[in-house]
Amino acid sequence: VGKPVFIRDRLYDVTPPGVVCGLAWTSMGGSTLYIETSLKNQVLSDGTDRESEKGSLQVTGNLGDVMKESTHIALTYAKSFLSRVQKDNHTLQDGHLHLHVPEGATPKDGPSAGCTIVSALLSLALNQPIRHNVAMTGELSLTGKVLPVGGIKEKVIAAKRAGISCIVLPEENKTDFDELDTQIKEDLEVHFASTYDNVFRVIFPDIFLNAP
Amino acid sequence: VGKPVFIRDRLYDVTPPGVVCGLAWTSMGGSTLYIETSLKNQVLSDGTDRESEKGSLQVTGNLGDVMKESTHIALTYAKSFLSRVQKDNHTLQDGHLHLHVPEGATPKDGPSAGCTIVSALLSLALNQPIRHNVAMTGELSLTGKVLPVGGIKEKVIAAKRAGISCIVLPEENKTDFDELDTQIKEDLEVHFASTYDNVFRVIFPDIFLNAP
Amino acid sequence: VGKPVFIRDRLYDVTPPGVVCGLAWTSMGGSTLYIETSLKNQVLSDGTDRESEKGSLQVTGNLGDVMKESTHIALTYAKSFLSRVQKDNHTLQDGHLHLHVPEGATPKDGPSAGCTIVSALLSLALNQPIRHNVAMTGELSLTGKVLPVGGIKEKVIAAKRAGISCIVLPEENKTDFDELDTQIKEDLEVHFASTYDNVFRVIFPDIFLNAP
Repeated sequence: VGKPVFIRDRLYDVTPPGVVCGLAWTSMGGSTLYIETSLKNQVLSDGTDRESEKGSLQVTGNLGDVMKESTHIALTYAKSFLSRVQKDNHTLQDGHLHLHVPEGATPKDGPSAGCTIVSALLSLALNQPIRHNVAMTGELSLTGKVLPVGGIKEKVIAAKRAGISCIVLPEENKTDFDELDTQIKEDLEVHFASTYDNVFRVIFPDIFLNAP
Repeated sequence: VGKPVFIRDRLYDVTPPGVVCGLAWTSMGGSTLYIETSLKNQVLSDGTDRESEKGSLQVTGNLGDVMKESTHIALTYAKSFLSRVQKDNHTLQDGHLHLHVPEGATPKDGPSAGCTIVSALLSLALNQPIRHNVAMTGELSLTGKVLPVGGIKEKVIAAKRAGISCIVLPEENKTDFDELDTQIKEDLEVHFASTYDNVFRVIFPDIFLNAP
Repeated sequence: VGKPVFIRDRLYDVTPPGVVCGLAWTSMGGSTLYIETSLKNQVLSDGTDRESEKGSLQVTGNLGDVMKESTHIALTYAKSFLSRVQKDNHTLQDGHLHLHVPEGATPKDGPSAGCTIVSALLSLALNQPIRHNVAMTGELSLTGKVLPVGGIKEKVIAAKRAGISCIVLPEENKTDFDELDTQIKEDLEVHFASTYDNVFRVIFPDIFLNAP
């Protein structure tokens, strides 16, 4: 009966730096969807000017055009966001980055992984894993607004099934979440984000964030 | 009941530098449409010659070919316009720019965002938000002529619904506006533009503009 | 009756450095599938910084998009893995690499050669053949997770038919393997891998592997 899509519940028990758990929504139901990022070169901290753009971003994982655009929006935003956390961290500016979304045979598309991708890039650049057992979903605008997404019910169920204990959803999806059965919502810490700042404070609670 | 297109009325309460509210027109009616721009690198003010073109423009947001062309027309025009405002501002010349139009899953096309895009690029380069609560629509020629667009009625209604208090329309759409019901037009400041200079004076009333 | 696919059982009696035997699965049944890699330039060990990415990867063999993506995922992973084995080996960072999958007239696709490609690249960079008579299959994530693949039965039969004495399969395919007839499984050493580390220890038993 058709092709199993996103059947894997939990690829990572513990996510290393650069890897963040997102939530996807398909005709088959919801699913966790990991964003993996890696650095292909070493980035030196030197005193040279940053006028030229030296880095690059390679994307794999059978992504459609909208999701590919999401990765570029996320990278532009993550670069400016990183300067508020670690001013001299040039990883995203100069790094040759590789972003992959397992599993390679499954086509994926849509803008709802925006927050997840930014989080993965920041985790990679900071060389620090995000808070354990958190998953998220949300489209991101170029200036860091978090936009609502579809499939909240399916995504929340998928998160629970995968043993996720804390989720971050777009503020504008709050009614969708509130309408869910109590049984689905219990034992789940939930945060609503209207800007990416809200997401960051959940996944990196100990990192000081300068004003924009 | 089809796909909801441009259902969001107001993404920004206050637009930061680089973001400008445009007006779009779809089969579903009118809508606000934000143009977001961001700088991917730091631009230094140095004394080197400007002969070589160092900058770049990346565009995302599921835009069709005509709208993509609009962004390049707007950038070329914005570069020459900027030199009339701040002669030593090289942001558009040297900057690696990123322009995004939320929401990523909605396809967008057409030339009518020309004025909006130029305004967003100038706001970014000047690092100054445009006048609060202004929205605009209008195709732009490469020399700064403002050309008429469709859907004036739907766009004006969308602007009112989103709480916009001042709109800029192409001069040649004046009759379309005049024909609207008084009820739609009341409490709305309107300006008609035949060249981009007219637009600029509305959104940056305090900035001195040198003759071309 | 149809197109012969992967009809050759055994292309190499002994695989040289840079060549590894994988297992493929087609509508015609299973087959061995060799990954061949070669270096197009000499790589010098010098003291220069590694900030810029100098190398390249050329891919031939009539590969589909998913399999092409697999080669890039494998290269990114192999680069970081190699630094755990030989810190000063810049072959994958600076080398102009060529990867080919015989036979050129046969279209090939899918993500299941991930482990095989990493193994071939590492064997090339280390200039050392892998353990004799080993074949493998398994998708790889960007961080080295080994993901399950299809066609385990057909692949194991193909390995036996080609005289392979040891195979490496994804951990999550263990039940598929356990369900096979005893006759198929006899005289076959099998290893299950959940991360690429497990694969490496089988094919390079004598090489010391630093922690990540």
